[in-house]
Amino acid sequence: MKNTFGNNITLTIFGESHGNSVGAVIDGLAPGILVDEKFISELLLKRRPYGEISTSRREPDNFVIESGVFEGHTTGTPVCIRIPNIDTNSKDYSDTRWLARPSHADYTANCKYHGFEDYRGSGHFSGRVTAALVAAAGLLIPALEAKGIHIGTHIKRCGGIADRDFSDLSADIKLLKELDFAVLDSKAAEQMIARIQTAKNEGDSVGGILETAVTGLEAGLGEPWFDSVESLLAHALFSIPSIKGVEFGAGFDMAELTGKTANDSFYVENGKVQTATNNSGGINGGISNGMPLIFRCAVKPTSTISLTQNTVNMATKENASLASKGRHDPCIVHRARIVVDAVTALVLSDILVGRHGTDWLGEK
Amino acid sequence: MKNTFGNNITLTIFGESHGNSVGAVIDGLAPGILVDEKFISELLLKRRPYGEISTSRREPDNFVIESGVFEGHTTGTPVCIRIPNIDTNSKDYSDTRWLARPSHADYTANCKYHGFEDYRGSGHFSGRVTAALVAAAGLLIPALEAKGIHIGTHIKRCGGIADRDFSDLSADIKLLKELDFAVLDSKAAEQMIARIQTAKNEGDSVGGILETAVTGLEAGLGEPWFDSVESLLAHALFSIPSIKGVEFGAGFDMAELTGKTANDSFYVENGKVQTATNNSGGINGGISNGMPLIFRCAVKPTSTISLTQNTVNMATKENASLASKGRHDPCIVHRARIVVDAVTALVLSDILVGRHGTDWLGEK
Amino acid sequence: MKNTFGNNITLTIFGESHGNSVGAVIDGLAPGILVDEKFISELLLKRRPYGEISTSRREPDNFVIESGVFEGHTTGTPVCIRIPNIDTNSKDYSDTRWLARPSHADYTANCKYHGFEDYRGSGHFSGRVTAALVAAAGLLIPALEAKGIHIGTHIKRCGGIADRDFSDLSADIKLLKELDFAVLDSKAAEQMIARIQTAKNEGDSVGGILETAVTGLEAGLGEPWFDSVESLLAHALFSIPSIKGVEFGAGFDMAELTGKTANDSFYVENGKVQTATNNSGGINGGISNGMPLIFRCAVKPTSTISLTQNTVNMATKENASLASKGRHDPCIVHRARIVVDAVTALVLSDILVGRHGTDWLGEK
Amino acid sequence: MKNTFGNNITLTIFGESHGNSVGAVIDGLAPGILVDEKFISELLLKRRPYGEISTSRREPDNFVIESGVFEGHTTGTPVCIRIPNIDTNSKDYSDTRWLARPSHADYTANCKYHGFEDYRGSGHFSGRVTAALVAAAGLLIPALEAKGIHIGTHIKRCGGIADRDFSDLSADIKLLKELDFAVLDSKAAEQMIARIQTAKNEGDSVGGILETAVTGLEAGLGEPWFDSVESLLAHALFSIPSIKGVEFGAGFDMAELTGKTANDSFYVENGKVQTATNNSGGINGGISNGMPLIFRCAVKPTSTISLTQNTVNMATKENASLASKGRHDPCIVHRARIVVDAVTALVLSDILVGRHGTDWLGEK
Repeated sequence: MKNTFGNNITLTIFGESHGNSVGAVIDGLAPGILVDEKFISELLLKRRPYGEISTSRREPDNFVIESGVFEGHTTGTPVCIRIPNIDTNSKDYSDTRWLARPSHADYTANCKYHGFEDYRGSGHFSGRVTAALVAAAGLLIPALEAKGIHIGTHIKRCGGIADRDFSDLSADIKLLKELDFAVLDSKAAEQMIARIQTAKNEGDSVGGILETAVTGLEAGLGEPWFDSVESLLAHALFSIPSIKGVEFGAGFDMAELTGKTANDSFYVENGKVQTATNNSGGINGGISNGMPLIFRCAVKPTSTISLTQNTVNMATKENASLASKGRHDPCIVHRARIVVDAVTALVLSDILVGRHGTDWLGEK
Repeated sequence: MKNTFGNNITLTIFGESHGNSVGAVIDGLAPGILVDEKFISELLLKRRPYGEISTSRREPDNFVIESGVFEGHTTGTPVCIRIPNIDTNSKDYSDTRWLARPSHADYTANCKYHGFEDYRGSGHFSGRVTAALVAAAGLLIPALEAKGIHIGTHIKRCGGIADRDFSDLSADIKLLKELDFAVLDSKAAEQMIARIQTAKNEGDSVGGILETAVTGLEAGLGEPWFDSVESLLAHALFSIPSIKGVEFGAGFDMAELTGKTANDSFYVENGKVQTATNNSGGINGGISNGMPLIFRCAVKPTSTISLTQNTVNMATKENASLASKGRHDPCIVHRARIVVDAVTALVLSDILVGRHGTDWLGEK
Repeated sequence: MKNTFGNNITLTIFGESHGNSVGAVIDGLAPGILVDEKFISELLLKRRPYGEISTSRREPDNFVIESGVFEGHTTGTPVCIRIPNIDTNSKDYSDTRWLARPSHADYTANCKYHGFEDYRGSGHFSGRVTAALVAAAGLLIPALEAKGIHIGTHIKRCGGIADRDFSDLSADIKLLKELDFAVLDSKAAEQMIARIQTAKNEGDSVGGILETAVTGLEAGLGEPWFDSVESLLAHALFSIPSIKGVEFGAGFDMAELTGKTANDSFYVENGKVQTATNNSGGINGGISNGMPLIFRCAVKPTSTISLTQNTVNMATKENASLASKGRHDPCIVHRARIVVDAVTALVLSDILVGRHGTDWLGEK
Repeated sequence: MKNTFGNNITLTIFGESHGNSVGAVIDGLAPGILVDEKFISELLLKRRPYGEISTSRREPDNFVIESGVFEGHTTGTPVCIRIPNIDTNSKDYSDTRWLARPSHADYTANCKYHGFEDYRGSGHFSGRVTAALVAAAGLLIPALEAKGIHIGTHIKRCGGIADRDFSDLSADIKLLKELDFAVLDSKAAEQMIARIQTAKNEGDSVGGILETAVTGLEAGLGEPWFDSVESLLAHALFSIPSIKGVEFGAGFDMAELTGKTANDSFYVENGKVQTATNNSGGINGGISNGMPLIFRCAVKPTSTISLTQNTVNMATKENASLASKGRHDPCIVHRARIVVDAVTALVLSDILVGRHGTDWLGEK
C-alpha cells in the first residue's frame, strides 16, 4: 500500500513540503500507552536542521495530535499527528519548475503524475514528510523502552570519515540518545562537520553510512519468508529518501568470508543461548535470535546541489543546465539517523504486536 | 503477510524440505498468458545442484500445475504449482535434531515454533522452497519479455573472485540466459568453481555477491514512500535465504561520493530522456526513471558445513559441538541467482499490473 | 486493517466526536482529478442534521484539505481531509460515563479499550466520523460520474412507512441528488418525517431500510471469491454504524423463489447483453454483469434514546438505569443515506482502478 | 486480495471443478494445533451431496495435507490441503460452452476472462472450491472448541418451509454437529427434503435461509470501523457462491422496530454483564459483547436448472435457449451450511489471533 505500512501497527503518511501540513495516522496502538509530548518534541529536534551545515529552512515542527489520545494516553483508536508547514518559500522553486534536478525525483514524479505533482520543495517526496514518521515513532519508542528494547543509530561514515565501531551497546545507545550529531567519537564528529561545511562551501554535498543497533529483542520474532525481520526492516528503510543500500550483520563483507569465519557459534551462559560473534546481525533464517539487531544503511549525497549540472527541461524535452538555488542540505546523513530509528521502532512494534496481541504495547 | 507477497500479483508459498511437496499459488495473473512448461523446466534446472560443487540431493523438480491453466493459457484464476519431494533422506537429520547449526534457522525456528517445527532438512526454511518461487516466475518471465523487459543476474563475486562488470546489458542478459553458472567471464567462472570445490573439500563454504540488471522498464513505476521500487524489491530479496545485503546503483559506495560525482545528469537523445551515468540504479525517489535497474545482493556462505563448530543442544540447553553430515551445498550463490531473477520478475509484474490494470500482462 | 480499507484506492479514517477533528486520508487517487470543493460541501450538507428531526448539535463541517491537492487537482499523492470539531459539549456525557447505553458501543468499547476510550459523544464510534468518509467520497463521485457511473440511495422504509420502488433509475438517481430527505415519493417523505418527529417526542427512535442503485457499471468487475463485488461492498457497508443487514438484488426474498422465478434470463438488444429481470442485483458469481447494481441496507433505530432503560454501571458492575440526555438523533436513516453513497463510491473506485490501472480515474 | 482472506490467519484458495485439484493454503496457524484428519473427513462429508436431492457427481473428497503438519500437529508454517478431482465428466459442459446459464457466472466470467476461463463445471466459480474451505476449517474448528467457542448453522427456511427457532443454543449447536441435514425440527426436515425432491423432479431449484449461532466468544473482539465483526464476517460470507443477503441479530426486522423495542438492555448476573434480548446479534459498534453471535444468510435457488430458459450465445451474441443437462443440485442450502460454519471459524480465528497473538490458537 502506497503510503501505508505495517500489518498490526499501520502507519499512513501524507503531506507535501509546501502544502498545509505533513502528518501521519498510526493505527493499531494499544490503549493506555502514555503519550509524552515533550519526548516527541525532542525527537523532532534531532531531525531538524543542524547548525550551519543544514538548510536554512527552519520549521518549528509544532505538532498537533488530532485524534486517538485522551487524557494523556492512547485510546486504542487511530492517532493522527499533524505538523503544519510554516516556513515555506515557494518562490525558490517556481523558476526551475521544469528543470529536473539530477538524481532527484523531479523527473520520475513528472513521468508518474503527468505534471499534476506539487513540485514546490519536492512536494510529497520531500524529506519533510519524515517529520511525521518521527512524530509517530515518538509514541512507540518509549513504549518499546518500557519493554527493555532500545534503539540507537550512529553515523558510521560520512564524507570519507569513520566513526569508531559500536563497543558497549547499552552505553553507546544511551550516549546516542543524548547526541544531536550522532557520532560516538567526538573527534570524528568534528571532522565530519568540517567536511560537510566544506561541501556546503563548494556547492556540493556528501553521503554516508548509518549503523543501527537494537538491544533487548526476544528470540523468535519474524517469519521465514516474506515477513522476515530483514524483509520488513529493509522495506521500511528503503522508503526513506536517499537510502540506497541496507545490510544486516556482516552484510556485503559476507562475500569474502567462509562458513567457518562467518558462522556465529552458539553457547549457553547462565541458561541463556548466545552467539560468540554476531555476523548474522541478530537474525537467523529471517527470525530474531535474541542477540542485538545490527544493520547499516547507505545514504547518498544530497542530490540538490548549487553546482551547475547538466539536465533536461521536462516541458520542452531539451537539454539544459541547472544550479539549484533554494535552501537545501549539503548532507542529510545526520538528520536521517532519527528517521532510521523511527522506522525501526515502527517495524519492531508491528512485529511484536502481531506476536503478542493488540494490548501488548500498552501493558504495564 | 507471512507467506504471501504482492499487492496485485500475489504469491503464496508453502512446503517443507522433507514434506509431501513444496509449491506456490500465484494469483492476479491476467487471463491468456501463454504457459510454456518447457521454459519453466529450464528455469528450474538453473536452480538445481550444479556438478560436483553442490549437494548430492538430486530432485527431478517435476512440477504439477494444479489449477489456473486451461488449454495452455492462464485462466485468470489462481495458479497452484506443486513440486513433489522425492529424494528425501530424513535419517541424516534425526541424529542432530537438537543441535542448532550455527547461523542457521534451527535455533530461531525452535524459539518461534516451540519444537513443533519440521526440522528435517531445514523444513520450511529450506532453500528448496525457492523451487516453487522459480516455477511461479516461469509464468511471468516470458510475459515480461514479450513486453520488452529482460532480467539477468550474474555472480559478481564469489569466494574472493570477481566477474567482469556488466558492459553491453542486452548482450550480457542474453548470455546469462544461456549460462548454467552465471559468470560473464569464463575464466572467472572456472576460478570460482575451483574455489567452491576447495571449500567443499575443506568442509567449509563460501559466499558472494549477485548483481542484477533489468532492461526495458518504463519510467514512472513505483511510489514515493512505502511502495518504492527499492522497498518492494528489497522486501522480496531479503526473503531469499542467505541474503544479508541489498544495494541499488552505487549503493554503499555512495558514502564515498559527493553530489557532483554521484548525481546522474540528464540529457535528451532522440527525444528520450536518459542519464549519463547510472549511480541511481534506475530509480529516483523510489520510482523508475527509464534507465536499467541495477542492484546487488550479498549472499552469505552456506551456514551448514562439515567442520566441527561450537553450538548448543536446544533440548538440554547445554554447550555442544556439531559437524554437519547430511547433504549440503558448499556455496549457494550460483543457485540463488535464478531465485533473484524470479523474485525480481514477481515484484516488477506486481508493480506493472497495478499501474496498467489486471489484463496488462496477458495482452498481446 | 482496522481503519484502512481498499486495495488500490485506500481510505484511512481517524477522529473522535469531541477530539480535535475527524478526517480521512485517501490514497491511490489518479493525478489530475478535478477537486470541486463546492460539491464536497454540498455532499456534507446531505449528511448533516435535518430540520427538527435531528440532533441539535450543528457542526459547520468546514473541511480542510491538508495534502494531495495542488492547483485544483489531485496530485496523485495522499489527500488528507480534516474536519475540525467545533460544536462539542462534553459535559453532556461525563455524568453518565460509566452507564452503558443499551445496544450502543459503550460497553464493548470499554471491554476492548479497558477504560482508555474517549467516551465523549461516542468517541471514535461516533457517526461523526462518517463526515470524513463523505468528504473523501466527494473526490470520487464526480470522477465516477465523468465515467458515466451514477449512484443513488433512497429511504426504502422508515418507521413502518414505505417509499415507492425505483422505476426509471436514471431519473430517480438524478432526483435523489437534489433531495435532502431522500424519499422518491414526497407523500411518503412527509409521513416518515412525521413518524420520526413522533419518535422524538416520545423519547424513542426509529430505523429503516436504504436502497441503493448504481448505473453505468461495466460487466466483468469483481472477483469470484473474497473480492466479490458483494463481499467488498458488504465489508464497507457493515462498517457504517447501525447497519445490521445487507442484501443484493432479491436478497432475502430469494429464499421463497425457485430457480425458474429467480433466474435473470439473458437477451441481446442492440448488441448488448442484458437481463430481463434483475433479481441478481447486477452481480453474478461475485462479478458485475453490466445491469444496475441494486442493494439494500437495514438501519437499526438509533440506540441512544431519552426513555429510561435498564443497564449496568461498567465501573461498579451493578445494575442501573439510564435516560440519555445529550443531543442525539431520533433517526439516522436519512443521514446514513449519503454515507452509503460514499462507501459505494469508494468500493467501486477501488475495484475499477484495480481493473484499469492507477491513472484511470483521472483520465479525461 | 482476490483469493486470499484474513489478516492474521490467511486463507488462499485455488482450483477448478474439472482441473487437477482444489485446495487451500492456510497460514498463520499457531504451532502445536492437533490435526484430526478424521474430523476433517467428517466435516467434508457434511458438505457432500445428500441422498437423492443432490447432484449425482460423487467425489470421495480425499484430501492430502501437502505441508505444515508434522507428527500430527501444525508446525506453524503454511498448511496446504489439496483435494484431487476424480469424478469429472467434462463432456456434459462442452456442448453448451457458449450458452450463458441465467444468473450463473458464465457470462460474467466470459466478460472478465475474455474466453480463457475454464468453463467446465463452472471452473473456479464452482461450489466445489468450498471443499477446500471446509477442509481448512477442519484445522480451526477443534482449536476453537478447545477454547470454548462453538459454531452451529441450521436451515432456517428452505423452499417455503421453516425450521423452529434456536432455543437452547448449546444443545442446538450440539445437535447440529450430529445432523447431516441441518434442521432442528425433524418434521420440518422431512418437508424440506420433499420440497427439494419436487423441485428436482420439476427441473427447478429452491433457495433458503441459513441461521448461525456462535457461543463462547469473549467481549471486545473486532474493530469500530472497517474490521467490525460484521464487516469481516459479511465479507467472507458473501464470498460463498449463492449468498445474496447477510443480516445480524434482528437484521432487516430492525426497520420495523423502535429504539425501545430494539435495544438490548444490559444487566449483571453473577458478575457477568449480559443483555436481556439479543437483537444486536452479539455485536455492538462492530465489537462482540459477549452474547451469542447470531446471523443469517440468504441463499438463492441454484441457478443451474433443467427447465428451458432464455439466454444468449456469448460467442455469437445471439439470443438462444438452454436447458441444462449435466449433474447439478436442485438446492445447495443444506450443503452451504457447513461452508458458513467454515467461513465463520476462519474469520473468528483471524480476529482472535490478532487480539491474543500468534501462539494463542495452539495454547493448551
